Amino acid sequence: MSFIDRVRACSMFDPSLYQPFVVDGAPVGLVKPQFADHLRAFPDVFVVSDDGVTLSLRLSDFQARTAAVSTALRELADRGLFSGWRDEPFPVATSPAGPILFNMERAAIAWFGIRAYGVHLNGVVRDGSALKMWVGRRSMDRPRAPGKLDQLVAGGQPAGLSLRDNLVKECAEEASVPADLAGRAVSVGAISYVTETGEGLRRDALYVYDLELPPDFEPRNTDGEIETFYLWPIERVLETVRDTDDFKFNCSLVVIDYLIRHGLIEPDHPEYLDLIHGLRSGM
Amino acid sequence: MSFIDRVRACSMFDPSLYQPFVVDGAPVGLVKPQFADHLRAFPDVFVVSDDGVTLSLRLSDFQARTAAVSTALRELADRGLFSGWRDEPFPVATSPAGPILFNMERAAIAWFGIRAYGVHLNGVVRDGSALKMWVGRRSMDRPRAPGKLDQLVAGGQPAGLSLRDNLVKECAEEASVPADLAGRAVSVGAISYVTETGEGLRRDALYVYDLELPPDFEPRNTDGEIETFYLWPIERVLETVRDTDDFKFNCSLVVIDYLIRHGLIEPDHPEYLDLIHGLRSGM
Repeated sequence: MSFIDRVRACSMFDPSLYQPFVVDGAPVGLVKPQFADHLRAFPDVFVVSDDGVTLSLRLSDFQARTAAVSTALRELADRGLFSGWRDEPFPVATSPAGPILFNMERAAIAWFGIRAYGVHLNGVVRDGSALKMWVGRRSMDRPRAPGKLDQLVAGGQPAGLSLRDNLVKECAEEASVPADLAGRAVSVGAISYVTETGEGLRRDALYVYDLELPPDFEPRNTDGEIETFYLWPIERVLETVRDTDDFKFNCSLVVIDYLIRHGLIEPDHPEYLDLIHGLRSGM
Repeated sequence: MSFIDRVRACSMFDPSLYQPFVVDGAPVGLVKPQFADHLRAFPDVFVVSDDGVTLSLRLSDFQARTAAVSTALRELADRGLFSGWRDEPFPVATSPAGPILFNMERAAIAWFGIRAYGVHLNGVVRDGSALKMWVGRRSMDRPRAPGKLDQLVAGGQPAGLSLRDNLVKECAEEASVPADLAGRAVSVGAISYVTETGEGLRRDALYVYDLELPPDFEPRNTDGEIETFYLWPIERVLETVRDTDDFKFNCSLVVIDYLIRHGLIEPDHPEYLDLIHGLRSGM
């Protein structure tokens, strides 16, 4: 096993199996023709052709689109086509800063291949010349990646909140990082990937932040997502990502990006350029 | 003008106008059919078809390939097909760490669309909470980008030298950075681009390093490439890259990458993800 295996695990995607999902002229998602067939039952909402799926142009504003899509998806969920309804509206837009075209139930976005966004924070401690990184172990009762390793703080990007405000909120909920300390987090880039998972297509861009924490800081989880936190020497983090699949699939990419940006994976690594490219393969 | 204009200036490339140049089964370059036509004069060296150019399989080792290609290229240069012969062997390989298939005269590599590699170093100084960056102005007598702004240290990657050794050598030649100080440079990633220039196709991957210099360090150029060095507040560097085209085209990408990695261009920038992707569009 190696770093590049982690990257490849986030690229299980064959573009030839997907067609565009278009809203108001903009391609916002990717659907499989087999899934599109189920949408033919709602011709007032989804226009299904050999080339993909278009949201009916008669649904011309946010309200109309959100209501019509929600009704159709509820019916599909009742028929058992997808599970895990969360009653959580997810904003569909052409870019994170772009206007929101409509809200879609979060459980459905993987079926429509809608791009999602998140914030991930590397929390590190400098102890003399030694560098350590905080790692969280996800609770066993989580539906996603139970027991896997995670960043100190990570969360999805909801509608109506800036990235920075979301980061501060997640810092408080996930690790009890006070707002003034969270405010010192530095944005350092983004990673992206497109990959098939059991729940459908994951098409994510993750905004990455680094935060140097004082040695006496002790994270404490308040939202039940993380069971335990570890403060590991960076070498142990490196070995764990390289040699095991203990990290949640996308969190391992955030670690690899950290290791590259801080000279801990060096250019003489035979897959250096492939790693750097693979960390942004979903853009 | 904006950051994204700098990135687009490094993506002046239409893949549909190019065909592969294949050596020993591996695509190592990109050629225009118009250029390939000139290679038909050397059927023992280049096999030209409708699908691209293949180096004759009869040339089965480094020595044979290097000699045969050199003879053909000299003849093309004598006919005036390309200029600037430098007598500088350039290693052609499928990756920077891969085995060298043959050496090609450097003046020809843009015509064959061979990927080239370089090392670029951001030299910065922390002065209390202020961050400054060393910027070099290229000599007016340089054939490439005279008078343009450049990193403190930057150079092409020659054959037979490790990236790190090349960086230390360039540090000494370009800015008189002593070896022990140069050794503190941290590798932080790579950028890449494919773009058409007056001299043909530039297909480069640049390995990027950051080096924090002591406030009393004064760079001094010894190889004639840099005329003057400036120590600018980072805000001035940011504005110069964003609002002018004073930086050499590829050096501006290295600066933008620095600004993103250090939180000076933040995720609320409307083109944040496009910038990050565009900085690696050549991989």
